[in-house]
Order: sequence, then C-alpha cells, then structure tokens
Amino acid sequence: MEAIEGRRAVRRFQEREVPLEDLKKILEAGIWAPSGSNVQPWEFIVVRERDNIERVKLVSPGLFGNPSTVVVLCINTKLAKRGGKLGEESALMDISMAAQNMMLAAYSMGIGSCPVLSFNKTALKELLNIPEHVEPVLILIFGYPRVWPKPPRRRPLKEVVHVEEYGRPFE
Amino acid sequence: MEAIEGRRAVRRFQEREVPLEDLKKILEAGIWAPSGSNVQPWEFIVVRERDNIERVKLVSPGLFGNPSTVVVLCINTKLAKRGGKLGEESALMDISMAAQNMMLAAYSMGIGSCPVLSFNKTALKELLNIPEHVEPVLILIFGYPRVWPKPPRRRPLKEVVHVEEYGRPFE
Repeated sequence: MEAIEGRRAVRRFQEREVPLEDLKKILEAGIWAPSGSNVQPWEFIVVRERDNIERVKLVSPGLFGNPSTVVVLCINTKLAKRGGKLGEESALMDISMAAQNMMLAAYSMGIGSCPVLSFNKTALKELLNIPEHVEPVLILIFGYPRVWPKPPRRRPLKEVVHVEEYGRPFE
Repeated sequence: MEAIEGRRAVRRFQEREVPLEDLKKILEAGIWAPSGSNVQPWEFIVVRERDNIERVKLVSPGLFGNPSTVVVLCINTKLAKRGGKLGEESALMDISMAAQNMMLAAYSMGIGSCPVLSFNKTALKELLNIPEHVEPVLILIFGYPRVWPKPPRRRPLKEVVHVEEYGRPFE
C-alpha cells in the first residue's frame, strides 16, 4: 500500500544512472503481471544509450524530462491473437498491468517513473527496428527523482464507488 | 516485489466474506493508479449481495468460481474525453493499472483476486443500471483463496527484453 500511494509521475531526474541490477528487478516485476489466457504478449525494449534516448525523444512529444532509462512496452500481436477475440483489448490491459508493476517495483527501490503515451508509433518502430507484428503502446521513463512531486488531487471514493448498482453511493 | 511475484489468479474461495474495511483499502489502492492527463476516468461498481453476484455471473461467461465480492471497473467516457485524442486508449490503461493496484493490495491482505474480461457488456449495463456514457471494461473477483495456485510458466526476461533495439538480447 505504501508503494501504491507513494508512487508519483516523475519527469525530472538526477544525473545518476539506474543500476542494471535494479533495472532487471523492474523488468522482472513486469513479467509477473497477470495475462489473459496466459499469453504474456509483451516485449520490452530498453533504451539506455544517451544518443538513443535523444532519438526516442525526437519522435515522442510526451517524453520530456531527462530519464536515464527508457523502456518501450510493446504488444506482440502474434502472441496476442492466441487470446481469441478479446486478445487485442486483453493485451493492452496486460501491458498496462505489467507497466504498473514496473513502476511500483521502481518506487520500492527509490526510482521514479512516468508513463508516456504520446509518441509517433511509425517513427518509433523504424527507429528501434520493431517488426511489423509488434506494436509499441506505452513508454516508461525511469531515473532518480530530483524531488518527489506532491500527489495530484484524487476523485474521492464516494464519487468513484457505487454499491450493487450504478449511482448507489458507497458511504 | 513480494506482492508482485506472489499474486496469483484465484477463482476458488472460502465462504468467508471480505471485510468492508479491507475492501475499502482495495478500492483506495485503485484510485491511486496513474491516469493520463489526471482525468481518473474510473467508476467502480461493488457487488456483494449473493443474488446480485449470481446475476452478474449469468451474463459473464468468464466469471466462474465463488467470489464473495465482485467489482466492475468502468470507463466514464465523459471524463475520458478530457484526455484528448489518446483519451480512449489512455482510459483503458488507467483502469488496468487501477486493477493491478487493487489486486496487489488485496494480496497484501491475504485476499485472492482474478481479472475477468469475458462478459456481455450490454446485459451487464442493464443489470447494474449503468448509464450510456459509462462502459464496463473489466471485472475483478475477490475472496479468501482455498489454495494459492502455483505460478504459471513465465516467458523469461531474455525472451521478452531487447536492448537499444528490437532483437538485440538483454543478457
């Protein structure tokens, strides 16, 4: 619960790199996400070289700040298709859950992160040599925060939660 | 990390109910998920009455087992639209991350869970009085596991992770 409530979107980082060992734990957390029909349709592309990060930024308007590590999360559509007619929607959910695991694992090691959705898919595919059947859907950035931002306002439970049917308040 | 690696999909539960206080913590974990443009497009419908759970099961082929608590996670499309052109995809990711938070929080309290994607949206909307602009996208079931299942095989990191570009192995 502490990690869940403590995690923040971080975009401004210290110069210090994320150690490879910690990155490995973050990636490991990703592959423990649940997956519809257990197809595990994810592919993770780790970008750590400074020049390559700059190239990714050029095609990703949502990627600002100065992360030392970038991970591009992709759906392997060949694997996703094994999930049947719900495969595509299911794969996007699997990837998102893997991403949340990765951000929580990072937080537990003092590493900040932020999800990025705004990027040019076609350009990114070309840049990272991503084959036809693999679709980048989400970028995560990682690094040691300069500061941990304050939590944004949350819609309170009594607004979000309904009991037994829509519109019946929780408390 | 322990919660991330320990969580399993659980469908067979003890008769014992999930206490309201624990359920509240689970729901609270959900609303701490990240959210694109901070729109927080989620609505959670909690179903706990035995008859109502049975009714939900009738329209949800993917919902088997005997959970004591069912939570239907919905996208409020009016809120999602504030996220701009990425709003719809972003909302599905937000909901999935909220769901992962909820499953991890449940696990930390000894409560098992399972995501369910296969249900009849139209029938569920009618059953739970869900308005036009709200779309149920995922069901989570909760309860105390009879047993914790063994972990399914995971695709190993060296298969999933690529370095600097697609196809270049991680280790």
